[in-house]
Amino acid sequence: MTSEESGTGLLAPGWAGSPAASATSDTAYLRALLDAESALTRVQAGLGLVPEEAATAVAAAARSGRFDVRDIALRARDGGNPVIPLVADLTEAAGEEYGPYVHRGATSQDILDTATMLVAVRTLDPVLADLERTQEALARLAARHRDTVLPGRTLTQHAVPTTFGLKAAGWRSLALDARDRLRAVRDGLPAQLGGAAGTLAAFTAYGAEDPTALVTAYARELGLCAPELPWHTLRTPIADLAGALAFTAGALGKTATDVLTLSRTEIAEVAEGAGGGSSAMPHKANPVRATLIAAAARRAPQLAATLYGSLAAEDERPAGAWHAEWEPLRDLLRLVGGAAHDAVHLTEGLRVDADAMREHLGLTHGLIVSERLAARLAPVLGRARAKELLTEAARRARTEGRTLAELLAEYIELTDIDLDALTDPAQYTGSAGALTDRALERS
Amino acid sequence: MTSEESGTGLLAPGWAGSPAASATSDTAYLRALLDAESALTRVQAGLGLVPEEAATAVAAAARSGRFDVRDIALRARDGGNPVIPLVADLTEAAGEEYGPYVHRGATSQDILDTATMLVAVRTLDPVLADLERTQEALARLAARHRDTVLPGRTLTQHAVPTTFGLKAAGWRSLALDARDRLRAVRDGLPAQLGGAAGTLAAFTAYGAEDPTALVTAYARELGLCAPELPWHTLRTPIADLAGALAFTAGALGKTATDVLTLSRTEIAEVAEGAGGGSSAMPHKANPVRATLIAAAARRAPQLAATLYGSLAAEDERPAGAWHAEWEPLRDLLRLVGGAAHDAVHLTEGLRVDADAMREHLGLTHGLIVSERLAARLAPVLGRARAKELLTEAARRARTEGRTLAELLAEYIELTDIDLDALTDPAQYTGSAGALTDRALERS
Amino acid sequence: MTSEESGTGLLAPGWAGSPAASATSDTAYLRALLDAESALTRVQAGLGLVPEEAATAVAAAARSGRFDVRDIALRARDGGNPVIPLVADLTEAAGEEYGPYVHRGATSQDILDTATMLVAVRTLDPVLADLERTQEALARLAARHRDTVLPGRTLTQHAVPTTFGLKAAGWRSLALDARDRLRAVRDGLPAQLGGAAGTLAAFTAYGAEDPTALVTAYARELGLCAPELPWHTLRTPIADLAGALAFTAGALGKTATDVLTLSRTEIAEVAEGAGGGSSAMPHKANPVRATLIAAAARRAPQLAATLYGSLAAEDERPAGAWHAEWEPLRDLLRLVGGAAHDAVHLTEGLRVDADAMREHLGLTHGLIVSERLAARLAPVLGRARAKELLTEAARRARTEGRTLAELLAEYIELTDIDLDALTDPAQYTGSAGALTDRALERS
Amino acid sequence: MTSEESGTGLLAPGWAGSPAASATSDTAYLRALLDAESALTRVQAGLGLVPEEAATAVAAAARSGRFDVRDIALRARDGGNPVIPLVADLTEAAGEEYGPYVHRGATSQDILDTATMLVAVRTLDPVLADLERTQEALARLAARHRDTVLPGRTLTQHAVPTTFGLKAAGWRSLALDARDRLRAVRDGLPAQLGGAAGTLAAFTAYGAEDPTALVTAYARELGLCAPELPWHTLRTPIADLAGALAFTAGALGKTATDVLTLSRTEIAEVAEGAGGGSSAMPHKANPVRATLIAAAARRAPQLAATLYGSLAAEDERPAGAWHAEWEPLRDLLRLVGGAAHDAVHLTEGLRVDADAMREHLGLTHGLIVSERLAARLAPVLGRARAKELLTEAARRARTEGRTLAELLAEYIELTDIDLDALTDPAQYTGSAGALTDRALERS
Repeated sequence: MTSEESGTGLLAPGWAGSPAASATSDTAYLRALLDAESALTRVQAGLGLVPEEAATAVAAAARSGRFDVRDIALRARDGGNPVIPLVADLTEAAGEEYGPYVHRGATSQDILDTATMLVAVRTLDPVLADLERTQEALARLAARHRDTVLPGRTLTQHAVPTTFGLKAAGWRSLALDARDRLRAVRDGLPAQLGGAAGTLAAFTAYGAEDPTALVTAYARELGLCAPELPWHTLRTPIADLAGALAFTAGALGKTATDVLTLSRTEIAEVAEGAGGGSSAMPHKANPVRATLIAAAARRAPQLAATLYGSLAAEDERPAGAWHAEWEPLRDLLRLVGGAAHDAVHLTEGLRVDADAMREHLGLTHGLIVSERLAARLAPVLGRARAKELLTEAARRARTEGRTLAELLAEYIELTDIDLDALTDPAQYTGSAGALTDRALERS
Repeated sequence: MTSEESGTGLLAPGWAGSPAASATSDTAYLRALLDAESALTRVQAGLGLVPEEAATAVAAAARSGRFDVRDIALRARDGGNPVIPLVADLTEAAGEEYGPYVHRGATSQDILDTATMLVAVRTLDPVLADLERTQEALARLAARHRDTVLPGRTLTQHAVPTTFGLKAAGWRSLALDARDRLRAVRDGLPAQLGGAAGTLAAFTAYGAEDPTALVTAYARELGLCAPELPWHTLRTPIADLAGALAFTAGALGKTATDVLTLSRTEIAEVAEGAGGGSSAMPHKANPVRATLIAAAARRAPQLAATLYGSLAAEDERPAGAWHAEWEPLRDLLRLVGGAAHDAVHLTEGLRVDADAMREHLGLTHGLIVSERLAARLAPVLGRARAKELLTEAARRARTEGRTLAELLAEYIELTDIDLDALTDPAQYTGSAGALTDRALERS
Repeated sequence: MTSEESGTGLLAPGWAGSPAASATSDTAYLRALLDAESALTRVQAGLGLVPEEAATAVAAAARSGRFDVRDIALRARDGGNPVIPLVADLTEAAGEEYGPYVHRGATSQDILDTATMLVAVRTLDPVLADLERTQEALARLAARHRDTVLPGRTLTQHAVPTTFGLKAAGWRSLALDARDRLRAVRDGLPAQLGGAAGTLAAFTAYGAEDPTALVTAYARELGLCAPELPWHTLRTPIADLAGALAFTAGALGKTATDVLTLSRTEIAEVAEGAGGGSSAMPHKANPVRATLIAAAARRAPQLAATLYGSLAAEDERPAGAWHAEWEPLRDLLRLVGGAAHDAVHLTEGLRVDADAMREHLGLTHGLIVSERLAARLAPVLGRARAKELLTEAARRARTEGRTLAELLAEYIELTDIDLDALTDPAQYTGSAGALTDRALERS
Repeated sequence: MTSEESGTGLLAPGWAGSPAASATSDTAYLRALLDAESALTRVQAGLGLVPEEAATAVAAAARSGRFDVRDIALRARDGGNPVIPLVADLTEAAGEEYGPYVHRGATSQDILDTATMLVAVRTLDPVLADLERTQEALARLAARHRDTVLPGRTLTQHAVPTTFGLKAAGWRSLALDARDRLRAVRDGLPAQLGGAAGTLAAFTAYGAEDPTALVTAYARELGLCAPELPWHTLRTPIADLAGALAFTAGALGKTATDVLTLSRTEIAEVAEGAGGGSSAMPHKANPVRATLIAAAARRAPQLAATLYGSLAAEDERPAGAWHAEWEPLRDLLRLVGGAAHDAVHLTEGLRVDADAMREHLGLTHGLIVSERLAARLAPVLGRARAKELLTEAARRARTEGRTLAELLAEYIELTDIDLDALTDPAQYTGSAGALTDRALERS
């Protein structure tokens, strides 16, 4: 059992080598499955339903390392899930006397669902830590660049000025939203225990007086929540994970999208700390972290859609809807885990070129403040004349390549107005600073 | 302006005629857009930024009914959104003097996003009411059928017995989860106000000392929340709606899927109160409500995926990501609105055939309790003998068409055991009753 | 019956007012449904199965304009599809004597599926024409700019030079791929006729000796193909449409994405002929057509996914999978129809700034040809020395802001080399011209 | 390099151990990447661009087995794709003299895209073989059960009779559609060769007079097609694969869905040859193959959506859209490969219970032929009387539990009619036989 067994990530530079990669490997799932089986026997022993020795034997067997994940995977084809062969192997490993206590009263889905929740918790913990580092890095960027002015861009065109601080504060706000949503979901993930049809009947058959107490003890043993009902076909926890993970991918994807744009050779207002190289073109420094996060953001929504689609699961346990969840949920955990990890590097290392930003404010020859001029000149000149004058000046700015400030200075009607101040983009950032300050108060 | 203008729902029996249909029509959107514009002038008047008369004039113009939604839709093509032509029309309607105060300081997206939030609130209110009625109907079903036993089915096959009460309690649990998620999202939906690039700069240019106070007042005026930051490209509210709506569709879809299965001619354990007819086959009573809910559940996840995908919106306002949200969000609101409405009729009218359920418990000749027999006979006969005996009896039950109880009665070793009780499916429902009771405590 | 009845397109500037909008309106669907019913009676008359007068009466009734699409939509809720109330109305309109011949032997799905195919054909014809105009415009652009050099960009960074001709030829290649795929699908769209369970039994009951001949005649009457089998749950035609439409949206989306990038204020190598305006910022000319096409490309894949998902349709006619197709297929037709229409305007009007392109070639101070220098200098200087020298020169180009050509001229080892030619980006376009020529041969 | 390295399939009983699993493993990708690099040097040698010895050395190095897939995967993170570290390793393995000829003129995407096409071909070949076996098995089923009558089911309810032959012929028709689509796509898959920006410029720099000839030779060497243009951002081949694979998953999913329904305990008209077991419930024989195929059909559409979404890839090579393709395309190949493999077992082993089918025809007490009675009695009794009589009889059949034939026999008006024949479901299968025969002629 080595980590190699569960996919090397050759096609997945977005998550290979990340904490989420090891937390979601096939061996990590195997470990979680064994944890779920061990805990089941342990809590049954705690309630006097099976001998203490059985719990000890099963725990020892689960730790024995005698399980061949590849072999289990292949044998899983017969019954359609890996718990069936795993239980056979664990039973054998526990020995003739205590083997029969393995998996007692449970159904395959109890174990696989519980293991999935354990894997989710174990993956989300480093993800949450990475989101925390990301938001801290973004808070620093926002504070440092509170008053760094750059062109606000809408529908790809310069609109009015904004600040890089407000931009970074927005990115941070999304990272915090993601953190809050993931944490809330993580803290509510339930154990699964219901038996064949979710009635807990087998536990009764094996002597439990109140099987719901067993469920509570089982959840506590594993650090998970106790569910209101067995949720074999009540998939709220999966859907909640799907939503929070898709949100996180998209939230980080927003930052990545902006970084990709601002990194363009023609714009170059930001650069990744360590751009990726190219074998053929030594001058290139690609925004690789942003690229990989953007790729994750493209995939996550459709994976979440598959999980939402599995809510419509028929009967007490479904033929397909459940099976369709396993890989997509893992994919989501990996993609988000990798993206959060990349986001730390992206945001902590981001280089900001405030000079380039300032320079770009002039690209429209001052038209970037035309909104302001319209507002300010109307009371002075009358609305009609203000509009006429501005339209003419804007046309000339474009065709003559002169700045709006120069052109307006030629109009005698504007002599008394401080045109330099009025056309200075840096003086037209509205509440950007105040909004940034307020957003940074959130923790 | 009639409701016909926005789609008759000819291809949408799932939502045509529902409260959500009228709450999301083109005219409803137009009304919300006008509400957003009116409120903007009103709060600016309240803060002394524009004359009171302007607010009065704009409000009157907005109510004037002089807007041709079809014409606005066509003119929206030029600039890519309907606010631009609407503002032109509203400005004209407000008259020469006060027209200039229309839309002052705002950007198209401020108005369309705000209007969308208004539409969402107005749609979700009846949806929440319908979910409430649905959960109440399911609570009644669960209570009434607390002890109605039927086969638990897993991977399409009879597994062990369960109760219809537990099944209905599970459906209700999902309806409550949906209600709670939708309500939380609904209560947090924010107004949008940021101006061209989200800095609120134009409001400053027009004289506002603290434009963030304007945002707060604007939100309050409309009954929406005040956002932390302008969210032109921080799309948390849209993503939260997407997730909660996709969840609701799936949650109701689970019930629908089960009703479709249980309604099958061969099963017929439930029937819709008013089944849909067929022109050619007078005997048919189709589960139409369940069919339409199931169809909604098939579509919602992919619509939500599009919305999650739009999180990765570049710059201060994006070229495409925003535009891609409008129709899918409305589609989701409609589908969920229709499904919730259908769910009321489905659950309030559902007819349950407890006799059919009981009868089906015998279809496997008693094998439905084989799990129980294995648990109970092992201590009596020893594990090996118990297994051998049961395997033989099960084989004979299948091939000879006799019941397990009859066959087991032939074994002298089992003389002292109350086989009738042990093989009675109705006595093997585990904690189904207790789980149902507990689940019904949730409100 | 006015076109307003089926949605004004207020939220859909991407397709409002396009040929696809009218071809897919509720009234267009109603017309197609009536065409399907008329044709059915007509071919039955042709085969002597019903009186000629019945065909005449049904045709007259279908043309009578007595159908209220809104009313039909609302009554469709009962049975879950609009054919049931439509048949009732058409039967009544045909009169007491001939009414009974309406819909004879058919099932609702026969009519709705057939109507959908008619709508698809009627929508695809203008779409194909628009794709043809688009590819012609792109051919002209490619030919005109065969040798217009601009930076090739990879992972957002300048890589090596390319030509705008090759770029436009690539866009055209996708438009042709889309045209070919859509045309192939369009030409194979089948009529639907199977009766209640796809056996054609009712037609036999009504006297047809060979109902399959009826199917053939029915398809011919409507200009559709005759299917091998009734395809109520063999949804190849729908899936083929889904694939070809999603492909087309993406193919046009590639062009749109590039136009959006190249239109950015900092790049400005292309501009839409008629950019969209902004009420607040008179200087803005937004790439609106590209924005709306990009929005369609974001939505189409998920709509197609829903249609692919409906392939798994159970039984002879399914409860939900079929119903889930109707709106998404229409949405796809509309989105693609609107995008193709916008693509005509986008490509025919596109303004190309070859000067800006040439200027940008210098942004990396000549590093854009570093790949070429590495290849050419290695044989002269030896690989190691070549690499060392280039690395140093590249570093200096970046830090000193001088061009590579200037810097290399300082190296005595390179005296005999025509550095001006070697560092001229316009002379490093490889096979761009030849590839463009070859691609333009395709028709 | 063992097959374990690329994922054991622990969470994927649907494809673990299938031909597609080994054809798409990380090591299979590594092999294809090396094949692509080897072929590149080989064809350059063939055209005299590099020494023959270089080709020999690179080929030997590629076969050397010195590549550590896990290590390459981790180093791929730096530049964002696995080709960069692979080229470094291959260069080193080829030795100081010939190493520099590795990857000459190519870009990473040339190699990875080409390798992906090789993997696709190598996966599709066994998939096509499995689809062939599946269609043959279905042809046998259709022929054998040409006249086996069972209830046709629509919206879950018995409608009119059909035959199992027609059902199987429909399943086969979809399998053939899938085979035809996949084969057409497979036969057109192109090699990729364009260099850094798709202009083939580097090959010119290295001495190629006509680089397009190099592309042709490269494609031929690898058994792939020569592309019209480099397709780094013209992703038709990927989209075509996406569509054909999603179609195949759905086509097989239709069969699986029907098998799941017909396998239900209450229906039991078919059973898988080797049903999956359950540890706890020895009587259960789950339809595992159908379950796993159904699960694949649930996932494939959304994976295809991601691939269609990547059509909108910006520039000459995109930052994210390309990277988002790799895993979803592999996932699709695996899911479809596993599903096709399962479909062989499902269809070859399917057990059909014609007796159960016949028995179910009676479940509606003869109402399953009510459509026929309405058609046949109207001419005899007059339409109004026929309808009245049938409505009454139908009501009595349901409430009294008697058959329609018995009840009708009581009506003196029907004395002369052969009611036994008229109400015999087996005599109301319309053209089912003829349609089956015709469908079986397709090969």
